[in-house]
Amino acid sequence: MSLAPAVVTLLTDFGTADGYVGEMKGVLASLAPGAPLVDITHEVPAHDVESGRLALARSWRRFPPGTVHLAVVDPGVGSARRALAVQSDGRLLVGPDNGLLSPALLVAGARVVQLPIPPTASATFHGRDVFAPAAAALATGAPIEDLGHPVEDPIVKRTPEAHRRLDGSIEGQVIAVDRFGNAITNLVGRLGGVLEVDGARLPVRRSYSEVDEDAPAVIVGSTGLLEVSVRDGSGAERFGLHRGSRVVLHPR
Amino acid sequence: MSLAPAVVTLLTDFGTADGYVGEMKGVLASLAPGAPLVDITHEVPAHDVESGRLALARSWRRFPPGTVHLAVVDPGVGSARRALAVQSDGRLLVGPDNGLLSPALLVAGARVVQLPIPPTASATFHGRDVFAPAAAALATGAPIEDLGHPVEDPIVKRTPEAHRRLDGSIEGQVIAVDRFGNAITNLVGRLGGVLEVDGARLPVRRSYSEVDEDAPAVIVGSTGLLEVSVRDGSGAERFGLHRGSRVVLHPR
Amino acid sequence: MSLAPAVVTLLTDFGTADGYVGEMKGVLASLAPGAPLVDITHEVPAHDVESGRLALARSWRRFPPGTVHLAVVDPGVGSARRALAVQSDGRLLVGPDNGLLSPALLVAGARVVQLPIPPTASATFHGRDVFAPAAAALATGAPIEDLGHPVEDPIVKRTPEAHRRLDGSIEGQVIAVDRFGNAITNLVGRLGGVLEVDGARLPVRRSYSEVDEDAPAVIVGSTGLLEVSVRDGSGAERFGLHRGSRVVLHPR
Repeated sequence: MSLAPAVVTLLTDFGTADGYVGEMKGVLASLAPGAPLVDITHEVPAHDVESGRLALARSWRRFPPGTVHLAVVDPGVGSARRALAVQSDGRLLVGPDNGLLSPALLVAGARVVQLPIPPTASATFHGRDVFAPAAAALATGAPIEDLGHPVEDPIVKRTPEAHRRLDGSIEGQVIAVDRFGNAITNLVGRLGGVLEVDGARLPVRRSYSEVDEDAPAVIVGSTGLLEVSVRDGSGAERFGLHRGSRVVLHPR
Repeated sequence: MSLAPAVVTLLTDFGTADGYVGEMKGVLASLAPGAPLVDITHEVPAHDVESGRLALARSWRRFPPGTVHLAVVDPGVGSARRALAVQSDGRLLVGPDNGLLSPALLVAGARVVQLPIPPTASATFHGRDVFAPAAAALATGAPIEDLGHPVEDPIVKRTPEAHRRLDGSIEGQVIAVDRFGNAITNLVGRLGGVLEVDGARLPVRRSYSEVDEDAPAVIVGSTGLLEVSVRDGSGAERFGLHRGSRVVLHPR
Repeated sequence: MSLAPAVVTLLTDFGTADGYVGEMKGVLASLAPGAPLVDITHEVPAHDVESGRLALARSWRRFPPGTVHLAVVDPGVGSARRALAVQSDGRLLVGPDNGLLSPALLVAGARVVQLPIPPTASATFHGRDVFAPAAAALATGAPIEDLGHPVEDPIVKRTPEAHRRLDGSIEGQVIAVDRFGNAITNLVGRLGGVLEVDGARLPVRRSYSEVDEDAPAVIVGSTGLLEVSVRDGSGAERFGLHRGSRVVLHPR
């Protein structure tokens, strides 16, 4: 363990205006003085564990080993759902046992413990009273084993898988729509195919710039998945796409 | 005083898109190099001093002694309203004299000084030209006395108080609605009572998980106040509640 | 060069919810460990290079020399548009060659290089794969010359200029509307004149406080430009102003 406290990132659905994030940061600054606090986001849609899971999946392993990720999208706070700390691929994570931490749980060798809920903890704000103190402990060098008992069966959520059909095409679905209106699918990108979207057939392109302004395109996005886009517009709006919308890839 | 500059937090109603927050952070980085900058929020509704006051109330004492809080929700900028620095319970705060800093002013032993407005300061942006430089001075160890003359009568705003009625019930009101639609009241929580809300009578519960999905509940929130919630929904919307809405607690 | 890594600021139109900003911060934390990360904004309207340019103009030189500004509003990502690094007035900047970095390019002595696009870079996310690594290199002391070949003709965008008319009045336009509804013009402020706005004639005031509540005012804003405001309201809404709206100053 190094002597300097580790970076602590924050990912929540709290927004910032109500001051809840401020409370968590205050706890972190008090219990892990000197730990750099890095916001990933506080704008996950309220209670949308799936969106939080995807944002965490994108970013958690981009940070260096030793980083502590504090992730709280927690509609079940106060219920019997467990509170977890995870060590995975050298990073540390804390958050509720509702699938949010799945990206780290799916890596071989991940270790998971259950954080105790102190009797003084608010029943509505474990981010402040359970997860932030645990993140601070990990950031200042506490071994994960010291934080709780091992958990063997954490809840794991996976991105839905695409299916190959008899005719050789692959049926997938939209898993997210981003700020730019890109409808991100669960289809691993490869050039040369054609994607069937709401009746339209769109060739897979390398980048937005290969298509005309205001024209739709299917491109390989930054995580390697096919995305339905409209240059200078919204692919999701153009084709009425949302999470779960069906798309079909016809490989060449 | 330690040699390392103190943490400086920021709480404003500026949003971030216009670059005003960037200007303030640049001033802080220039005048207090090495001071960690921590965002509490920039999404206080524009000119809503009361919301800013509540967000500050939640968070300011969660940070360790020595922390400097830079808080600017300032509809009176450029008027005769005073600019303040406050030392309270070991923390330091700067901001306008409009009630925003009340949570720190109400603590016994708080000391307050008036910051001079330099003639070169913009009449519309004291956050950049008055408050950020003062926060930087405090973060780098300047004693508060060096920043201005004492103020004896800063403006203090309080959360409205609840009133006991002749029949033993307690009349309170909604003081805030948070991002999750929880309507937070000014009633100190205790289990066993019933809250009358817009004609409905709701028992006080320990947590969201004790009620059915989509059912309304009154719970003790994370600051100890009763909140009207709907699990996986909005308590404020369900009952048409907003700041100032009347509620009545019938203790058991 | 100092031994401690420089502050790296981030200015994007990504929002934070999708996790793209988290990916960039992870790259920075991995390649420039210890560099303080400071958010300027991630709420530039999607693909709005002009708004990004103005937010950067406000803030980049407020930060101390040595600061690295990572600015990405990049509708042309994946096209032939160049990727740039700039050294200007002691600060360092990286971003796309689309005018976004103009505030730094316009300063005498600015040096510009073209960043190579590695073949492994995503065609849709140069923020993560090109600009963040370059910012990290600069923050850890790499000379700008090491990052690419010099560029002599970067794209420069300027705020449109006001024009003096035959009658001595000055015709300008609105260049931005901020969060508070202030319509910021391209007219350098001076007291004593009258601004003609959508048929109304408004005297130039020193600050909001000189006008009645809910009354319109023209004031000298915090960058020295005239702004159309309504106290406790929106100047832009009152007069139907948006970027490009014409205004005329009649000097006294």
